[in-house]
Amino acid sequence: MVTPTCRPCLLLGAFLMLAPAAFAQPAPTPAPPAPAPARAPNVVSPEVASDRRVTFRLLAPNANKVSVLGQWDNIPHNLAKDASGVWSVTLGPIEPSYWIYNFTMDGVDIADPVNPIVKLRMRTSASMVNIPGDPATTWDVRTDVPHGSIDINWHNSKVTNDARYFYVYTPPGYDPNSPAKYPVFYLLHGNNGTPSDWTAAGRANFMADNLIAAKKMVPMIIVMPWGHSVPLGGPQGQNNDTFDRYLTQEVIPLVESKYRVAPDRANRAIMGLSMGGGQAIRVGL
Amino acid sequence: MVTPTCRPCLLLGAFLMLAPAAFAQPAPTPAPPAPAPARAPNVVSPEVASDRRVTFRLLAPNANKVSVLGQWDNIPHNLAKDASGVWSVTLGPIEPSYWIYNFTMDGVDIADPVNPIVKLRMRTSASMVNIPGDPATTWDVRTDVPHGSIDINWHNSKVTNDARYFYVYTPPGYDPNSPAKYPVFYLLHGNNGTPSDWTAAGRANFMADNLIAAKKMVPMIIVMPWGHSVPLGGPQGQNNDTFDRYLTQEVIPLVESKYRVAPDRANRAIMGLSMGGGQAIRVGL
Repeated sequence: MVTPTCRPCLLLGAFLMLAPAAFAQPAPTPAPPAPAPARAPNVVSPEVASDRRVTFRLLAPNANKVSVLGQWDNIPHNLAKDASGVWSVTLGPIEPSYWIYNFTMDGVDIADPVNPIVKLRMRTSASMVNIPGDPATTWDVRTDVPHGSIDINWHNSKVTNDARYFYVYTPPGYDPNSPAKYPVFYLLHGNNGTPSDWTAAGRANFMADNLIAAKKMVPMIIVMPWGHSVPLGGPQGQNNDTFDRYLTQEVIPLVESKYRVAPDRANRAIMGLSMGGGQAIRVGL
Repeated sequence: MVTPTCRPCLLLGAFLMLAPAAFAQPAPTPAPPAPAPARAPNVVSPEVASDRRVTFRLLAPNANKVSVLGQWDNIPHNLAKDASGVWSVTLGPIEPSYWIYNFTMDGVDIADPVNPIVKLRMRTSASMVNIPGDPATTWDVRTDVPHGSIDINWHNSKVTNDARYFYVYTPPGYDPNSPAKYPVFYLLHGNNGTPSDWTAAGRANFMADNLIAAKKMVPMIIVMPWGHSVPLGGPQGQNNDTFDRYLTQEVIPLVESKYRVAPDRANRAIMGLSMGGGQAIRVGL
């Protein structure tokens, strides 16, 4: 059904020859065998029980103190070490939500090393734990409703003088060839965030999928740009002004040229969290 | 230009009311103030000098031993602690590439907490450092070439019995309304990986952008599915068989229905890294 020998394949042979050494052979320098990526294959963390109690674990035989801090109570909870060097604590029941947490190991904040669900931040990424609700909650990833897609739109920005990207959610059944037009919603993340926040950490796409399926929300396009428009070491006082110009001069025209959005006032909305809330008020008014 | 008051906005008011407490007010439980996301605002890591020497730093006053392990040599290098509790080491010059590394702090492998560039893995995420080449390297993010987009295609899978996603790169200028057809390239990640590996860690999209701009590669669609088809605790011996069925029965038909791909043998290729290489041979033959 699929053949490995064809013209693009040969071209991509060359493509991979040029790839960084970590990903392809031959490498620019002789590459020793890759190190084992996971040290602690048997530790599970977090483990969510049916009663909504959650056990957090960290394999750290040489640590002196480990605690976990989560946004359900914002109180550090100490973990205790067993004879095998695994630190653990069981908390809760914790209210249903999709919560941010991190470990603090001997004073250093770290994501949970064995939890693949990461909230990517500009600095100091954290982990996420899902506490499901009963009945099913709005942020559940359900297999009985159709799913929208998320586009990562890379582009060169003259305003910010770099290459950057914005995320766009398109609802289930969105068809670029259809004449239908959709409302558009600009959704802005908070300080220290990235365009992935609303979907990877906030599950906005699954909430939209579920609300659209329940007919509690009209199908719409959701645009999630990057609110940090000035480099980390740059003049942060100019960030909101630069972002305002970036959004209005570049993101909105790109969105309206690529997606089937209704461009009138009644079909356009903007909202944000924290820093993004301030930006939404500024741009909106 | 953008108005915050309109019908979708009101609907999304309700949408945000239902959001997890970490992201919206009011919350299902009273939410205390969020903790400061970053503890170490003044530590920069990694710092890449023009001579390709790289300094790695970790603020960890209470740690007893910190080392850094990178794929440029796969040798652990110890960091030394200064009076302020910052551990550091300067290595190199390191060959130009986009390298994976992690810290080991008192025996625990962690990503570099202040580096936002993360290689997301099923377990034990790591960090990335870019060592630019001279002249410009293929994996550079350039502002003088146009960029393709990346779509995250969520869908319900009958084969794997879950909701999952595959990444798709569309080249610059890709137009779903155009009659042009593109070759399609299926690119499979290695063990412990995710669909984001080839773009977030491997920079396949920037390499494709640059090679297409240099006319060293024809514009094509690149499909990056998730190679783990069996849950972490499930029967891993069935993974490749399940992935084979998932790719051929679900991914390829979805790709051919959504994207303008040439569906014939001569315009379809498959390639993979490590576990993905085995899968590519199996599916390809």
